[in-house]
Amino acid sequence: MAEDRLVRQLKALAHPTRLGMLQRLALEPEICACDLGEAFAVSQPTVSEHLRVLREAGLVTTRRRGTTICYSAVPEALSELATVVAALHPRETAEAA
Amino acid sequence: MAEDRLVRQLKALAHPTRLGMLQRLALEPEICACDLGEAFAVSQPTVSEHLRVLREAGLVTTRRRGTTICYSAVPEALSELATVVAALHPRETAEAA
Repeated sequence: MAEDRLVRQLKALAHPTRLGMLQRLALEPEICACDLGEAFAVSQPTVSEHLRVLREAGLVTTRRRGTTICYSAVPEALSELATVVAALHPRETAEAA
Repeated sequence: MAEDRLVRQLKALAHPTRLGMLQRLALEPEICACDLGEAFAVSQPTVSEHLRVLREAGLVTTRRRGTTICYSAVPEALSELATVVAALHPRETAEAA
């Protein structure tokens, strides 16, 4: 169900480290797990856990590059999420002049 | 801290009933708590709890109208949230032709 997926994606975003990881991934096409760990000063198991949550929500995807695993954002999922959040803006407000 | 507020807002959104309530509030300038309860077929205490979470996150505001409390979305907060989520879209993708 689409609603379930959206809620799962919002839950995945609702953490400062995961939000920060996606903000980093918006700027680079691909980042390796080890570089993300350094950027956020968290242990590798913690990085892996956050990336697992993002991957299971469909917000990031992985690719093996040699011995490391690299992550990239899933543009379609982020577009869809942005559309849903943008649509929450009220059409008209009582306060509007 | 702005990041804390964003994470709190994302957490508030990450529930099917609360997301649905905001989707309703996007279409009408103001809705009374009792009407929201009917719309989502949940008990009044459950409605109140969800609305409390949304209010504490700064996504909705309240106004007393006679004996009832009416809720409306906070356009500025929803705009800010939409901007943050839109900015998560990757600038360029490896898949792009």
